[in-house]
Amino acid sequence: MIRINENFLKLQASYLFAEIGRRVTQHQKENPDKQIIKMGIGDVTRALPAACIQAFHTAVDEMGQDDTFRGYGPEQGYAFLREVIASEDFQKRGADIQEDEIFVSDGAKCDTGNIQEIFAQEVAVAIPDPVYPAYIDTNVMAGRTGLFQDGRYQGITYLEGTRENGFIPSLPSEPVDLIYLCYPNNPTGAVITKDQLSQWVDYAKANKALILFDAAYEAFIRDDELPRSIFEIPGAREVAIEFRSFSKTAGFTGTRCAFTVVPKDCMAFTRGGEFYSLHTLWNRRHATKFNSVSYPVQRAAEAVYSSDGRRQIQERIDYYLRNAALIVERVSAMGLTCIGGVNSPYIWVDCQQDSWKFFDLLLNKAGVVCTPGAGFGKCGQGYIRLSAFNDYQNVVTAMDRIKNLL
Amino acid sequence: MIRINENFLKLQASYLFAEIGRRVTQHQKENPDKQIIKMGIGDVTRALPAACIQAFHTAVDEMGQDDTFRGYGPEQGYAFLREVIASEDFQKRGADIQEDEIFVSDGAKCDTGNIQEIFAQEVAVAIPDPVYPAYIDTNVMAGRTGLFQDGRYQGITYLEGTRENGFIPSLPSEPVDLIYLCYPNNPTGAVITKDQLSQWVDYAKANKALILFDAAYEAFIRDDELPRSIFEIPGAREVAIEFRSFSKTAGFTGTRCAFTVVPKDCMAFTRGGEFYSLHTLWNRRHATKFNSVSYPVQRAAEAVYSSDGRRQIQERIDYYLRNAALIVERVSAMGLTCIGGVNSPYIWVDCQQDSWKFFDLLLNKAGVVCTPGAGFGKCGQGYIRLSAFNDYQNVVTAMDRIKNLL
Repeated sequence: MIRINENFLKLQASYLFAEIGRRVTQHQKENPDKQIIKMGIGDVTRALPAACIQAFHTAVDEMGQDDTFRGYGPEQGYAFLREVIASEDFQKRGADIQEDEIFVSDGAKCDTGNIQEIFAQEVAVAIPDPVYPAYIDTNVMAGRTGLFQDGRYQGITYLEGTRENGFIPSLPSEPVDLIYLCYPNNPTGAVITKDQLSQWVDYAKANKALILFDAAYEAFIRDDELPRSIFEIPGAREVAIEFRSFSKTAGFTGTRCAFTVVPKDCMAFTRGGEFYSLHTLWNRRHATKFNSVSYPVQRAAEAVYSSDGRRQIQERIDYYLRNAALIVERVSAMGLTCIGGVNSPYIWVDCQQDSWKFFDLLLNKAGVVCTPGAGFGKCGQGYIRLSAFNDYQNVVTAMDRIKNLL
Repeated sequence: MIRINENFLKLQASYLFAEIGRRVTQHQKENPDKQIIKMGIGDVTRALPAACIQAFHTAVDEMGQDDTFRGYGPEQGYAFLREVIASEDFQKRGADIQEDEIFVSDGAKCDTGNIQEIFAQEVAVAIPDPVYPAYIDTNVMAGRTGLFQDGRYQGITYLEGTRENGFIPSLPSEPVDLIYLCYPNNPTGAVITKDQLSQWVDYAKANKALILFDAAYEAFIRDDELPRSIFEIPGAREVAIEFRSFSKTAGFTGTRCAFTVVPKDCMAFTRGGEFYSLHTLWNRRHATKFNSVSYPVQRAAEAVYSSDGRRQIQERIDYYLRNAALIVERVSAMGLTCIGGVNSPYIWVDCQQDSWKFFDLLLNKAGVVCTPGAGFGKCGQGYIRLSAFNDYQNVVTAMDRIKNLL
């Protein structure tokens, strides 16, 4: 008898963005004339940079001629892309990462989910709260949690982000093996300093733990003192895996290209306590269950590092950061407290009431869609997330509407 | 302490194509002047059809303008692609498959590996021998096998393909829950009739088993009596999932687009014996751990179904089938027995000696690279696989060289 993975039955049915969609659709049906502004979505709105488009076209043309056509590429990604990533994103910032430690993929969402396959079923997992829901859901599917009770899955160590700690969780008081961190943070927009991140690296070393570091928003960092990669922290090569993406950096959310960095020094252990290379394990997983990213997409990603590409990307990030700064300014002027919006595209607003109630208020009275903080975990209750990924004029209008409402 | 998934340690180190690569490199180093012809690779050689290239370019241009730019698409794929697939590949052939039963992905290799996540750890798995190695390796990683002993993993039911049964395995004599089938077959080139496939569907129904049907090579079928989809068989909707790919159909090996068909009637069971929809489970898995295929790639795939696309693809398949027919003719004229090469791009040759010995002979004395059958499993010993994915002139030369050698 074919049986299902019953861990899936533990998953909570209502996914955050689906519930938002439901409420927005309902509102639009009842108010067909009202113009809604979506300030909740973590998706870019600006076109791909011209340098990427040009490289994309050139590569598509190559695919159209027998003599330049490319079939299966290396599962780990083409050397032209891995080399420029290692050099530009890491070595130039003093992080010792080599080209063969880069695994090109089709998305950080896929990678953060798939990486779990190389770990033992029994590892103790620590996940921030509030958090990007996919970290938790994929662990539930993999059977690393108990049931959902009182708003949380049993068996997970939640790393609480609060007003008091500025949404940088304290080190766990119970032993954990696998730690998810994301900075600049989604959803709070909080950033981590080198000193703070060093404490996590030291903890991992002392406890033989591993850090899964999601740096999908590193391109938004403007303060040069902040780490853009965990590998800027001494010793991190032995205890960390990093996830990066071109989605938010260069507008690749619909184009799909990302990468994972697994240093060769990065070790885990067998039941018997012997060292084992995670690079070897991930390479085997990646080559067996993945067949690399579309060749033209890899060429478009390579163009991100060209001088034109760099300038065009900078211009886009500046545009979104200008939105973010405006949101911070206007929200603060309304007397609300917020964090984020500096070195980050997200603004985390203390709404001083139930998240979903405030969501409904903004939707119904101002026609503005936000993301209710409670959807990101228990600690998100009382907050909303606003996103800087939008048209500037939309942001201005949305802020005017919220001001008039409050 | 962070611990590894020790199931990975059961995996055999030497992967078939890596070992072939090693021997070829060695030979080239020792014989730098000799021109090698690769007749072993299952990768296409002809460019993408012009219709796909044109659609690809148009979509890339859309991504370059703010007003036509697309960010995150639906995880399951865009409706424009799912609809044309359901209509053209299934409904027009009398298979009742709806658009929302199509899950667009970046590869059948990924899908056949990932699908396992929705099944219980304890299901009994049946895998053909000879077989595409990834089916087995991914089950090993997932912990559904014992150790590797005497050339096989314990705990797997091997469905033996032999001279005697024409490489269509008999129904298993022990109860199994999950059955992998692939027709037209990789590596043997064997095809299955509707009657034969019906027996498997009936077995699955009677035993509450599920069939994972890999139809990656269906485009090579020219005999209209043969099923191109398992869903042409009555009752299959309840007991089968099908994997398709644009890789071999339209030359997308380096462009990456595929899809999986999970009918809504397709059911599995809980431990307690209750029905559960696999469509719901796979939808949840897909949406949580995958973020869809690049938008321009989906547009290129859509163009496969245009009238120009269809004609151009037909022309490519014809080209490869002409290679296949030539291989069959020449190999047979040498007095060797083979199957495949008709309705299939692969030719499975009985080499009447050890596979790797014959591989070395062809490499060293004829400069021709084949794939040793033993690399596909115990039952592949004594065979080699030749591939029709090549330039016609190369095939002629390779056949001349082999003839002169033997």
